[in-house]
Amino acid sequence: MSFQRVAIVGLGLIGGSIGLAVAEYLPGAVTTGYDADPAVRKRAAERGLANTICDSAAEAVTGADLVILCVPVGMMGAAAAEFAGALKPGCVVSDVGSSKQSVFAALTKALPGATVIPAHPVAGTEHSGPDAGFASLFHHRWCIVTPPEGADPAQVDALCAFWAALGARVDTMSAKHHDLVLAVTSHVPHLIAYTIVGTASDLEDVTRSEVIKYSAGGFRDFTRIAASDPTMWRDVFLNNKEAVLTMLQRFTEDLTALQRAIRVGDGDALFDHFARTRAIRRSIIEEGQDDARPDFGRSDHES
Amino acid sequence: MSFQRVAIVGLGLIGGSIGLAVAEYLPGAVTTGYDADPAVRKRAAERGLANTICDSAAEAVTGADLVILCVPVGMMGAAAAEFAGALKPGCVVSDVGSSKQSVFAALTKALPGATVIPAHPVAGTEHSGPDAGFASLFHHRWCIVTPPEGADPAQVDALCAFWAALGARVDTMSAKHHDLVLAVTSHVPHLIAYTIVGTASDLEDVTRSEVIKYSAGGFRDFTRIAASDPTMWRDVFLNNKEAVLTMLQRFTEDLTALQRAIRVGDGDALFDHFARTRAIRRSIIEEGQDDARPDFGRSDHES
Repeated sequence: MSFQRVAIVGLGLIGGSIGLAVAEYLPGAVTTGYDADPAVRKRAAERGLANTICDSAAEAVTGADLVILCVPVGMMGAAAAEFAGALKPGCVVSDVGSSKQSVFAALTKALPGATVIPAHPVAGTEHSGPDAGFASLFHHRWCIVTPPEGADPAQVDALCAFWAALGARVDTMSAKHHDLVLAVTSHVPHLIAYTIVGTASDLEDVTRSEVIKYSAGGFRDFTRIAASDPTMWRDVFLNNKEAVLTMLQRFTEDLTALQRAIRVGDGDALFDHFARTRAIRRSIIEEGQDDARPDFGRSDHES
Repeated sequence: MSFQRVAIVGLGLIGGSIGLAVAEYLPGAVTTGYDADPAVRKRAAERGLANTICDSAAEAVTGADLVILCVPVGMMGAAAAEFAGALKPGCVVSDVGSSKQSVFAALTKALPGATVIPAHPVAGTEHSGPDAGFASLFHHRWCIVTPPEGADPAQVDALCAFWAALGARVDTMSAKHHDLVLAVTSHVPHLIAYTIVGTASDLEDVTRSEVIKYSAGGFRDFTRIAASDPTMWRDVFLNNKEAVLTMLQRFTEDLTALQRAIRVGDGDALFDHFARTRAIRRSIIEEGQDDARPDFGRSDHES
């Protein structure tokens, strides 16, 4: 089986990129799109983010084989409730949210009897909204599918094949494990970045202008992450609370140990820690998950 | 006055870039270079990082108008002691270290009677060593000069003009203020990045392979910073201890507040914080301190 009619609910960075990617890499499939914001629907129509932009979620999902919810994870249940009666039998409902246990619970509650197979493409940029998407966003990125117990293997395979067609590499795991993995590779890094950027802008003895001017010493990398969509990230932290708090506790323990090494002047402990973390960077580049050029190949190197 | 003979002591990323930049933008000036590591001297000669590569620091500084120490901040005193007797009268001794109070103290102790005017170009990449440098490293970056009390204005101006000629924008401030500003814009961000990368690689319930595969969710940005030179960074933390610990305390307070907001489910507090930090990113891009393209314009967007 493969999906011929794909409905995209939520037309921001991820939803828009899915629409553009289907048009480019699955030209046989037809897409419909819906967004709760009329201004986003208008812009989505102008950019051609889906073949048809609909005025209601129910209209968008009518006749679809696959519905993908691309809204902040805290809005999944309400967004699904809008089209609950309109799904055709056999339709697969999926999503792209960054927490999977909470989304599965919300969708099965809002759509009793529907087939729900959550997924999470680990891809994005700091930009959001209907102008942010592009067809190659998922290239070389991983998409994690979290099939619930008892899911139909043919439907799971079809969803995996869909993401592979958009250029992603696909893995499956439990929703619980996903939430733990993403807490450390994505959620806690975002929280830390948001924190330090806030700390820096609230100081009395260092001006905001100084923070901005001297940001090339490391700070600017954090500001990119801390420019991500606030609504999306608020919802991620509220919906993956347990795993985030667990990982944050680990981080705080490790930071306290390094802080102590600085305080007592234990240079060996600092050096050993700093030498060890270089290896991870090499592996990420070898695995194709980042640019090998210095500074990510930022354009100022060419100037 | 301007500098006609420039000696570079330490031929890694920064020292090598200074040599290449002088050759490109100050063709009238002559450079000599020295590094304590014979293998680095050999590679420096092959790449032409200075006009002459010398076999001792004393030989390199002989006749120089300007000596720039480009070694880790913990090694400044020892590196300077090697050439203490060889400076010509009127020579300005400067450096590129990331902490300025400790460097000034070390250099004035090692070089009694010499003219020491510290400086810090806020530029770099995660790479280090004699192959890492390039002539345009300082373009559009700030160089902070920290003249001690009573410094000769003509010499300070000449040092500022030297850095401006290499493409940098130049500011002057006290060494104490520099150390506070850099603690927040560079040192604490590096410590946090080193910490989270270490935390992620020590987990039992998430494998290192998973951390690497799913790093595009935010983590990969931290690994770039945590791949910086371990010796340099050990020295920075030991030599700017007071300011780093002060800023770390502020960071921890702010992180604790966000952690509490997650625990009690205070979505409004999270949203307000996350929305506020976006503005800083915009200012950094407007000021020309980072690439405006999504994801720093990483090359995978073109693929």
